[in-house]
Amino acid sequence: MTKGDIIPDWDIQTWLNTDTPLSLSDLRGSVVVVHAFQMLCPGCVSHGIPQAKSIHQAFPPGKLQVVGLHTVFEHHAAMTEIALRAFMHEYRIRFPVGIDRPDPRGNPIPLTMQAWRLQGTPTLVILDAQGHVRLHHFGQIEDLRVGAVIGQLLTEAESISP
Amino acid sequence: MTKGDIIPDWDIQTWLNTDTPLSLSDLRGSVVVVHAFQMLCPGCVSHGIPQAKSIHQAFPPGKLQVVGLHTVFEHHAAMTEIALRAFMHEYRIRFPVGIDRPDPRGNPIPLTMQAWRLQGTPTLVILDAQGHVRLHHFGQIEDLRVGAVIGQLLTEAESISP
Amino acid sequence: MTKGDIIPDWDIQTWLNTDTPLSLSDLRGSVVVVHAFQMLCPGCVSHGIPQAKSIHQAFPPGKLQVVGLHTVFEHHAAMTEIALRAFMHEYRIRFPVGIDRPDPRGNPIPLTMQAWRLQGTPTLVILDAQGHVRLHHFGQIEDLRVGAVIGQLLTEAESISP
Amino acid sequence: MTKGDIIPDWDIQTWLNTDTPLSLSDLRGSVVVVHAFQMLCPGCVSHGIPQAKSIHQAFPPGKLQVVGLHTVFEHHAAMTEIALRAFMHEYRIRFPVGIDRPDPRGNPIPLTMQAWRLQGTPTLVILDAQGHVRLHHFGQIEDLRVGAVIGQLLTEAESISP
Repeated sequence: MTKGDIIPDWDIQTWLNTDTPLSLSDLRGSVVVVHAFQMLCPGCVSHGIPQAKSIHQAFPPGKLQVVGLHTVFEHHAAMTEIALRAFMHEYRIRFPVGIDRPDPRGNPIPLTMQAWRLQGTPTLVILDAQGHVRLHHFGQIEDLRVGAVIGQLLTEAESISP
Repeated sequence: MTKGDIIPDWDIQTWLNTDTPLSLSDLRGSVVVVHAFQMLCPGCVSHGIPQAKSIHQAFPPGKLQVVGLHTVFEHHAAMTEIALRAFMHEYRIRFPVGIDRPDPRGNPIPLTMQAWRLQGTPTLVILDAQGHVRLHHFGQIEDLRVGAVIGQLLTEAESISP
Repeated sequence: MTKGDIIPDWDIQTWLNTDTPLSLSDLRGSVVVVHAFQMLCPGCVSHGIPQAKSIHQAFPPGKLQVVGLHTVFEHHAAMTEIALRAFMHEYRIRFPVGIDRPDPRGNPIPLTMQAWRLQGTPTLVILDAQGHVRLHHFGQIEDLRVGAVIGQLLTEAESISP
Repeated sequence: MTKGDIIPDWDIQTWLNTDTPLSLSDLRGSVVVVHAFQMLCPGCVSHGIPQAKSIHQAFPPGKLQVVGLHTVFEHHAAMTEIALRAFMHEYRIRFPVGIDRPDPRGNPIPLTMQAWRLQGTPTLVILDAQGHVRLHHFGQIEDLRVGAVIGQLLTEAESISP
C-alpha cells in the first residue's frame, strides 16, 4: 500500500456495530479511518483502540468514519467472533468493526490484510474523501500527527464538496 | 473473606506456567500474592496484571509467590483455556496461573471465587507466611500500599523463621 | 478574544531563544501556535509545555511557528527572567519565548494577557496564516484536537499561497 | 553514604511547613523518608515529588516522617527561598521542607548534600527508627520497592518499641 493508492475494498466476514455492511465505495465523500487490530494484541489494547475511540468521539459523523478491522493472523482459536463480541462490550467500542475474512486456502493471514499488505497490528490507515490512502502506519503513532492528517483531509473534502 | 482469616485452598481446573499444581498449604512459609483476574477485564489488563508482573519481578522467589487466578464469571465462551493461553503469551505473564474451577451446578461464578466471596476483578489477596489473609482489595490499589504490605509480611516471616 | 478576530500584537519585554524579536505581523503567512504559560504552573509543566514541544518538533519550521508567552500574573518575585532561563534550560524548551511585559501601572496581569483577555495558564491560541484567531483554549486540550486544527490551517494556507 | 550508616544531621538554613526545626535525633523512633530535590529539576517534579506526597498521605504521622530537602547545587539565583515558597504553594507540598545550607566557602553544593555525598536530584534516603540509612537511591525508583522498604522498617520499629 503506497500513499495515494486507491485500495481494493475490504473483504468482511461479519460486521459488528452496524446494521448494514459498509464498503469503501459507499464511504466516498467521507474521510475514512481504518484501525486494523487484534483483540489480544497488547499494543492495540493500550494504544490503537483508545486512539480509534478518541477519533470516533472527536469528529462529526458523516464527514469522518472510523472503522475497526479485526485482522486475525495468529491465535485463531482464541480470537473468535464470540470472543471479539465480549471484548468489544468490555472495552466499549461503539464504531463499526468488520472481521477480516479468513483465507479459505489456509493462509493464516486474512484476505484484506493480504490485499492491503498490512505488516501487523495495530495499523492505522486513513483514506481521503476520494478514497486515496493518505496515511498508512504500522505501530504506534502520535495523536498530534493523526489529528493533523485528519484536519488536512477534512479541509480538503470541504473545499471540494459542492 | 476477613483480614486474619485462614481461607480454604483454591480449586483449580488447570494450571499454566507450572509443572506441578500449587496449593496454599504447600506455600506456607512464603508470602502469597493472589491476583484474581479475567483476561477480558479492562482494569485487570491496564492495572492489575502489570502490578502482578511488577511484584513477580521485584521480590525474590522462595520468599514470595505470585499466583494468578483466572476467575471467569462472565463471557465464559470467550475466555476459554485456549484464549487464556494466547493472552498469557501475548502479555508475557510468567508466574503460575490457575483456572478457577467452573461450578458443576451451573452457577456462573467459579468455585474459588464463590468460596472466597470475591466481588469481581481485579482483586488482590495477600496472605502471610502462616496463610492468614492480610490484604483483600477489589479494584485498583496503589503500588506504594501493596509494597508496604509485602515489606511488612516479608519482615514478619523472617523474624519467625528459624 | 473571539474566533476569527485579528488580535493586537504581543507586547514583549524580553525574547529568549531568538536573536530577533518576533511580531505577529512578520509571521503572517505562517500558522502561529502561542502557548501562554507560567513556569510554576503545574498544568503548564505537565501538559501545556510538553504539548508545545511536540508541536514544535512535529511540524516544519517556516509553515508553522510555535511561540511561548510567559504571562506572569502571580508569584512575580519567583518567576523572574533569570528563573525562566534556568527553567527553559532544564526543560529543554527550544522554541522562542517572549516575556509578557509587566503592567507599568501595577496591575499584576501583564499587558498582552490583558489585551488578549486570557483567563489563566496554560492557554493555547492558534492563529491562521492571515492572523485570525482560530483556536483559543484555556486549560488542557487533547493533542488530537490540536492536531486537527493545525492540519486544517496548514491546508488552508497551502491552498491560498501562490 | 552506605547502607547501615548513621549519618550526620542535616544543616538547614530555613524550614518551611513546620513551626519548629526538625532534627534527625529528635526523629529517632520514626522511620524518616528524606526526599532531596530541586524545584527546577524535571525528574523531581514529575517523579520524586509526587512520590514523596504519596508517601506523606499513605502512612500514619508519628510512625513515619517525610522531609523534603531543597539541595540547590545549580541555578542558585533562580531557586531562591521566595521561589521555593511559590513552588510549594502551587504544587501543594504539605510536608516539612528544609533548605540545605549554602556553603559559606563558595562551593556550589550545599552543606548537607556534601556531608551526605548525594550525587544529584532526585535522591531518596530512608532511615530506620534507629537512624540507620536503609535506602539511598539517586534517580527514579519504583513505588513498589519504596513501599516494601517502608513496610519493612515500620514492622521492625513496631517489634522493637516497648
